[in-house]
Amino acid sequence: MRHVITALVANKFGVLNRITGLFSKRGFNIASLSVASTENPSLSRMTIVAVGDEDTVSQITKQLRKLYDVEHVEELLPAESIFRELLLVKIRVKPEQRPEIESTVRTYKAKSVDLTADTQTIELSGESGKIDGLIRILEPYGILEIARTGVTALARGEHNINDDAD
Amino acid sequence: MRHVITALVANKFGVLNRITGLFSKRGFNIASLSVASTENPSLSRMTIVAVGDEDTVSQITKQLRKLYDVEHVEELLPAESIFRELLLVKIRVKPEQRPEIESTVRTYKAKSVDLTADTQTIELSGESGKIDGLIRILEPYGILEIARTGVTALARGEHNINDDAD
Repeated sequence: MRHVITALVANKFGVLNRITGLFSKRGFNIASLSVASTENPSLSRMTIVAVGDEDTVSQITKQLRKLYDVEHVEELLPAESIFRELLLVKIRVKPEQRPEIESTVRTYKAKSVDLTADTQTIELSGESGKIDGLIRILEPYGILEIARTGVTALARGEHNINDDAD
Repeated sequence: MRHVITALVANKFGVLNRITGLFSKRGFNIASLSVASTENPSLSRMTIVAVGDEDTVSQITKQLRKLYDVEHVEELLPAESIFRELLLVKIRVKPEQRPEIESTVRTYKAKSVDLTADTQTIELSGESGKIDGLIRILEPYGILEIARTGVTALARGEHNINDDAD
């Protein structure tokens, strides 16, 4: 099962290292991780997608909460959350293939962001499933490289993480 | 100076921890980090934004290259690269303020992704400067929470990271 865990952490040397160390010690692989600044300059927000059973995830979140410099940790459930990630993908495209690629780009509401005689770079944001779908459609053309941000997430509705932060 | 470093790393327990450990040991703070899967199931791609002088960044990239399970490391320069990140932001909005918020959303080509009687959640992707700009405009309404993916990046043109990977 895929679990999305979000945490507010102090924006300091070494916090990220302590967190990734906890996952690594538990032998718990991280499918994606994104961490960036927030509206509060002293806090960063981290979103981790990890694959594992309920028990392991609940143990990890408990241990994360005990870490120094970790302000708040919660699991965001799919039905109550907005999950988004961003993809940049560079593919091999012959000039005669450009119209069909443009049609795919329009269908996915993606964007062409770079073009050369033989390549095209496309940007897409959305849920992970939509991004996986575009990658599958582009695979036959020849994918040269992919950069994904990994998932970031917020709870739907009025609830916000600062309500619970201690 | 802001530096954007991209790396292909083995999709294994502990690699992420060794990398964040290197930054932490050098006292080098990470402004944002994103790591996710690639077209190759055995490799993840990581993008790190770090603030520091040229010498420190060049030392860090050299040391990253020496790490086991790190396949390729390069610094991506602004003039030759596409940098993107994605923002989710939840703000306090009174019903009478909705039209002005909708106008801001249109100007930025952002999206409203959730709405309650008192709150609105907005999604925006673009370069970091554009995202910082929208956050500044929304601040007076009352920002409840922010989740950013951090930067992901690809080189412009035909060059791709797999060309150089050893």
